[in-house]
Amino acid sequence: MTNDKSPRKSFLPVPNDSHFPLANLPWGIFRRAPGAQPTVGVALGDQIVDLHHLALKGYVTTGHSPGLFTTGRLNELAGEGPDLGRQIRSQLQKILAEDCPTLRDQPSLHKDLFYPQKSAIMDLPFASGGFTDFYSSINHASNVGRLFRDKDNPLLPNWRHLPVAYNGRASTLVPSGTPIPRPKGQISPGPGLPPVYGPSQKLDFELELGYYIGVENPHGTPIPVDRASEHIFGLVLVNDWSARDHQAWEYVPLGPFLSKSFATSVSPWVVSPDALKPFLRPMASQDPKPLAYLCEGQRQVYDVTLEVWLTPAQTGVPQKIATTNTQELYWSLSQQIAHHTVNGCKLQIGDLLATGTISGPTPQSLGSLLEMTLNGTQALQLPGGLSRRFLEDLDEVALVAYGQGQDYRIGFGEVRGKILPAPV
Amino acid sequence: MTNDKSPRKSFLPVPNDSHFPLANLPWGIFRRAPGAQPTVGVALGDQIVDLHHLALKGYVTTGHSPGLFTTGRLNELAGEGPDLGRQIRSQLQKILAEDCPTLRDQPSLHKDLFYPQKSAIMDLPFASGGFTDFYSSINHASNVGRLFRDKDNPLLPNWRHLPVAYNGRASTLVPSGTPIPRPKGQISPGPGLPPVYGPSQKLDFELELGYYIGVENPHGTPIPVDRASEHIFGLVLVNDWSARDHQAWEYVPLGPFLSKSFATSVSPWVVSPDALKPFLRPMASQDPKPLAYLCEGQRQVYDVTLEVWLTPAQTGVPQKIATTNTQELYWSLSQQIAHHTVNGCKLQIGDLLATGTISGPTPQSLGSLLEMTLNGTQALQLPGGLSRRFLEDLDEVALVAYGQGQDYRIGFGEVRGKILPAPV
Repeated sequence: MTNDKSPRKSFLPVPNDSHFPLANLPWGIFRRAPGAQPTVGVALGDQIVDLHHLALKGYVTTGHSPGLFTTGRLNELAGEGPDLGRQIRSQLQKILAEDCPTLRDQPSLHKDLFYPQKSAIMDLPFASGGFTDFYSSINHASNVGRLFRDKDNPLLPNWRHLPVAYNGRASTLVPSGTPIPRPKGQISPGPGLPPVYGPSQKLDFELELGYYIGVENPHGTPIPVDRASEHIFGLVLVNDWSARDHQAWEYVPLGPFLSKSFATSVSPWVVSPDALKPFLRPMASQDPKPLAYLCEGQRQVYDVTLEVWLTPAQTGVPQKIATTNTQELYWSLSQQIAHHTVNGCKLQIGDLLATGTISGPTPQSLGSLLEMTLNGTQALQLPGGLSRRFLEDLDEVALVAYGQGQDYRIGFGEVRGKILPAPV
Repeated sequence: MTNDKSPRKSFLPVPNDSHFPLANLPWGIFRRAPGAQPTVGVALGDQIVDLHHLALKGYVTTGHSPGLFTTGRLNELAGEGPDLGRQIRSQLQKILAEDCPTLRDQPSLHKDLFYPQKSAIMDLPFASGGFTDFYSSINHASNVGRLFRDKDNPLLPNWRHLPVAYNGRASTLVPSGTPIPRPKGQISPGPGLPPVYGPSQKLDFELELGYYIGVENPHGTPIPVDRASEHIFGLVLVNDWSARDHQAWEYVPLGPFLSKSFATSVSPWVVSPDALKPFLRPMASQDPKPLAYLCEGQRQVYDVTLEVWLTPAQTGVPQKIATTNTQELYWSLSQQIAHHTVNGCKLQIGDLLATGTISGPTPQSLGSLLEMTLNGTQALQLPGGLSRRFLEDLDEVALVAYGQGQDYRIGFGEVRGKILPAPV
């Protein structure tokens, strides 16, 4: 719960539990039909507000050509600087408010300005040159360490000193709803035995918060931790699908590779830091205190509820199997950015960074099946006598996130993907 | 030495030891001055042949606008398919031959068509969405394993079963000649002690062969090993600069990250597989035999000599400190591509893949200082009483590569970088 007072309402009806009230207005790229023009829109209730159309009609002014909204990605919009996004959201919040007659009282315009989310095709919001995945949840890192390394001392020596991360594969980021064929690869049947080739038998999801870079740093110039948040354009949900058996065999000594690069799903709506501001909370101090370049004046994290919904192939009925919160992060997003660039590494507009799996301290708050089932040794029980050790073909996973206000939500919507059988 | 007969000569004088005879014609992006139009050219002797100008004048026909040669990168040229590159090289080899009067006898054209390499600014040849670094030299992997793991059993169990690799950082690929500031980061003073923050004290180079993807695979569709070579546009030299102290501390469990992402240098000229064909050699059979998806009808590798030249800050005199050969690779480029995509991972036009450090079996054939100095414990002796454990400020490293024919070379030129002091 936030202490923020109820924000202004839109003239479009938006239920209190909608993820997309007027106070949110997350950015996305939508198409009205396959092959149609990809267009920048913002989500409002169950509709999409067409920014290209608003700009053409002069209801939104940007100082740029309306073509800024039809490049098929948010990179160019972000490239015009953070002020532009702010200005546009501010104009929209005025013109879409319930007390503003301009658009409200011209229903003939609504057909072109609003498009139902349920009929739209959502693309990836950005073209990403880089995808970096951190490992910033202490419960997750501890759970994994207990499973594979040391029960009593699960965290590696570096973990509390730096936000561990690896470079993922940007070319296999896919929009929500993209089916996920079960990947094939090498699996070790046991120590000393040669590997076999086949579909992953340990296919898993990972519940992660992602964020897109909107402001670049020059190559060679680190981003100071207290300025890092200014480089974030907005936030999304990321499902970092993982083939645990492929991963266990391949990952020494250079880290995960094919076990992740078959697909990574991204939610369609990019929530701006401004919209999430009411949900900022202080973070606990860190012990040991990190090195100076990681020390923030004020360490903060969002109070955002995260949920995992599994729809088993056999029932088709979604079951909530985990609830956690971004407050479970040990390393803040600003610390992640400061660390990523401390060596001068350049972050580019559209780069996606993700937190790594976010797990809470309880069995009901774990962000992966690996943790829920202790690497498949204890089945997760589901209603109807079903159970899961890992994902089965035609299972569907949806991740959901929102900040909960007094009588409103600032939500991410969801990122969804259904497992398909491995290609023959 | 190759059994190939001497190829056709150009009307431009090209010495026998030039890397760039008419039989090579590697692709690059050059500018005549800072801020000038980046243009596609090919190297010939000590000149660059301006393809935009040739296309404008109609001496090269492509079926496309001459603008194909002024996009500032080779991605669009490669995107038109491998036949186009072949056709252009073939036209050039005719029109630039010593017995062809068309250009030869119009010296007034030469000023616009040829530009001296020594006056040109060379950009990165491609815009890269992905950079993947393999670990495919058995001597290198064994040397590293002996240093950090097990003297008697240096290779990890997966090494002979798959070409180990990790995703690098594409945003910090830099063209040859870009200065390399010494990166800062976390260094562990020893077990149990907290890390310190500072400039790397173990800055190293890595001698690698790189290759650019010219033909994409659809996401979800693996590239069969026997078709993999068709996806390579051309080859370059890669210096995968490494901060060994940062790496040792950060790399568990997710692999190298900041220790590599401060900069990776790429040579400017992309040598086509056609030009290197005379240097293809059969590779020894592998034991154990790899899984079927990695088994080629005919495993081949280039006979390309690789050299490391170090110019110590104190003398300014280049010293050759290593000579090795791409035949030292255990995993072929085709196996690397087949493995990279076996899970359906998409390779994009312009993606850079690299072999990992290539080391031979002798002390004179090692591809990194880490190996030459046994992680800094034994200094490398240089002329004039100098020695090196790792790179010092203002040291310069150049990697050089060429295939040696009877009386000609097919060369890569060089990739060069000078270490600058860490930024304050």
